[in-house]
Amino acid sequence: MLAALPLLAAAPAPEKPAAKPALAPSEIVAAAPAGDWVAIAPADLLVMDLAPDAQGRARRVVIQLMPAPFSQGWVGNIRKLAAAHWWDGLSINRVQDNYVAQWGDADGEDKARAKPLPAGLMTPFEGEYSVRLEEIFPARDAKEVSTAADVEKWVTPDQEFAASLPKMADAYAPSVFHHRGWPLAGDMDRYWPIHCYGAVGVGRGMSPDTGSGAELYAVIGHAPRHLDRNIAVVGRVIEGIEHLSSLLRGTEALGFYKRAAERTSIASIRMGGEVKDLPRFEYLSTESGSFARYADARANRRDAFFIKPAGGADICNIPVPVRRAKG
Amino acid sequence: MLAALPLLAAAPAPEKPAAKPALAPSEIVAAAPAGDWVAIAPADLLVMDLAPDAQGRARRVVIQLMPAPFSQGWVGNIRKLAAAHWWDGLSINRVQDNYVAQWGDADGEDKARAKPLPAGLMTPFEGEYSVRLEEIFPARDAKEVSTAADVEKWVTPDQEFAASLPKMADAYAPSVFHHRGWPLAGDMDRYWPIHCYGAVGVGRGMSPDTGSGAELYAVIGHAPRHLDRNIAVVGRVIEGIEHLSSLLRGTEALGFYKRAAERTSIASIRMGGEVKDLPRFEYLSTESGSFARYADARANRRDAFFIKPAGGADICNIPVPVRRAKG
Repeated sequence: MLAALPLLAAAPAPEKPAAKPALAPSEIVAAAPAGDWVAIAPADLLVMDLAPDAQGRARRVVIQLMPAPFSQGWVGNIRKLAAAHWWDGLSINRVQDNYVAQWGDADGEDKARAKPLPAGLMTPFEGEYSVRLEEIFPARDAKEVSTAADVEKWVTPDQEFAASLPKMADAYAPSVFHHRGWPLAGDMDRYWPIHCYGAVGVGRGMSPDTGSGAELYAVIGHAPRHLDRNIAVVGRVIEGIEHLSSLLRGTEALGFYKRAAERTSIASIRMGGEVKDLPRFEYLSTESGSFARYADARANRRDAFFIKPAGGADICNIPVPVRRAKG
Repeated sequence: MLAALPLLAAAPAPEKPAAKPALAPSEIVAAAPAGDWVAIAPADLLVMDLAPDAQGRARRVVIQLMPAPFSQGWVGNIRKLAAAHWWDGLSINRVQDNYVAQWGDADGEDKARAKPLPAGLMTPFEGEYSVRLEEIFPARDAKEVSTAADVEKWVTPDQEFAASLPKMADAYAPSVFHHRGWPLAGDMDRYWPIHCYGAVGVGRGMSPDTGSGAELYAVIGHAPRHLDRNIAVVGRVIEGIEHLSSLLRGTEALGFYKRAAERTSIASIRMGGEVKDLPRFEYLSTESGSFARYADARANRRDAFFIKPAGGADICNIPVPVRRAKG
C-alpha cells in the first residue's frame, strides 16, 4: 500500500471481512521457488564504488552487463576499461533530472587534458544497436516473422505460458517482451534492449560516432524510450541506483555540473570477479511461472490497497526482480 | 544530444554536410508564439518551501493544482490546509526510489500526537477518482461514445489537428490524450488524470478511505500508472521537482525514513496568491499547433543527435511544457 497512515476522515470500515486479497507482486517474488532464480555470474557485473557521501557512508553501484547478442562491442570495451582501472579517480559529471546520471572523463573534450584510453578498444557501428531475431534464438531455424503474433510464438512457444503474461501495449515497438531476464523490443526486422529505469547506456558524440563505452549513463527517470536504437544499452543497475538517482542535479545545459566541486568522485570501477566479498546476485527467470504471475500482478494489482486493476502494464513497469542470493 | 563529448574512437566525420536537421522539441517550444501559451493563475498554485539544504540553498517546489472536473474534493481540502498553514513545520517522511516522495504529518498514525486537521474538510468518495466525458466537455451534447476513435473525435474534433498528433499506444487505457494542459486517460466509460513523472497524489489508507489531501506525494520515477484510478491525482510539480527527486532515499519499508533526523522539514506551504514575488507561470496550450509539433518531435526525434525516430511516444514522455512567463 502507498502509505501506512491513519484513515484520516475515512468512511467507516466495512463490517464483514473482505475475501482474502491476492498476493502483491513482491509477495509472489518472495514465494518463488529457488529453481526459478538464475545466478548472475560475477564476471558479468561491473562494480562502481563512489567516494563516500557527506556522512561518510559507502556508495556502491552494481551493474549487470548485457549478455550476447546485444551490444557486445561496447561491453567488451567496458571490460577492458574496468580491467585497466580506467575510471578510477574520474567522476559523475552530469545529473539531469528525470533523465540520466552520467560518468566518465570530465576533461574528455579537452584533447590536451583527456585521459588516454587503454589500447585495443573497438569501434562498434550503429547497426549493433539492434540484432536480428535469429541472433537471439540461435538454436532455432530462421523463419519468416511478419506479425507481432509471429514474434510472440517465436519468443514464447508455450502457448499456455504466453497466455498467462499480461498485455503490454507499447508506443515504441510492435513487440515487447522479456527474454532471459531482459526487457526487449522489436519491429519484426530488428530487436533491441529497452531503456527502462536503471538501464545503463553509452554516451556518444554525433552520428556516426557510437561511443566507446568510456562514457556511461544510468537512467534515473521515466524510461527515455526515444533513446532505444539510438544509443547502445549495455546493462542495468541491479543494486545501488539510489546513489545515482539522489545526486545533486547539475544546473548547466543537459544537467552537467557548473563547478568541478559538484562532481562525485569515482573511487573505483571493477569487474565483479575482481571484487572481494561481493554478494552473489540472481534474477527471477523471465521464463518461469513465478515471473508470469508477478508480471500479471504488476499489470493487475488485486492486493488489498488497490481497487481498480489496470488491465495491462508498460514493460518498464514490470522490472525483472533481482536479489542477493540467500545463504 | 545526450553528451557534449569528443568523438572518442569515432569513425571519420562525413565529408559533405548533412541536410539541416529538424528542430528539437525544446527548439519548437522556444519558437512557439506568445499566443500559444496559457497563463496559470497563482490561485491554482501550491508553493512548498523546504528548509534550506546543507549548503544553505533555498528549496522551493511549485505545484499546479488539478482543474475541474478532476479531484476537486481533495483540491478544495488542500486549499483549506494551505490557508490554515497546516503543513508548516511538518516534513517529507518517505522517499522511495523510482516511486514517490511523500510529505505530511510524521506522527499522523499516533492519535495522541497527530496534528489536528482544520475544520471543514470533506470526504471525497472513490467514484471521484475519475469522471464522465461530458463532465470534461460540459458545453457539448452528451452522446454515445463506444470506441477510442469516438473519443478522439470528441476530444479533438479538428481532424487535421488530430492527425498531426503522434501515436501514443498505451498499456493502461484505450484512450490517452492531452486536454487543457493535462495528460488524461479513459476507457469510454470513465476518464482520469494520469500519474506521470511529477504528478502529485493523495496518500490514503485502505479502501474505502480516499485520503483527505493532508498527506501528499510527488512521483519521482517511472510513471506508476497502476495508481491511476486508485488514488486521487491533484496536481503536478511545475518547478523544483529536483528538490524532491534528489532527496536521500528512506531505508524502511516503502521508503519511510528510519530516523526523524533524516526527514526534510517543510518551512511552509502556501497558495500561490499568498506568496510575494512569485513568478508568473504559463503552459504551452495542448490545443495549439506548437504543441502538436512538439509532441510529434518527442515521438519522432529527427534532430541531429538521433538516427532512428521512434514512431510514437508514451504520453508521459510528452510532458506539457511549463515555463516562467517572460517580461
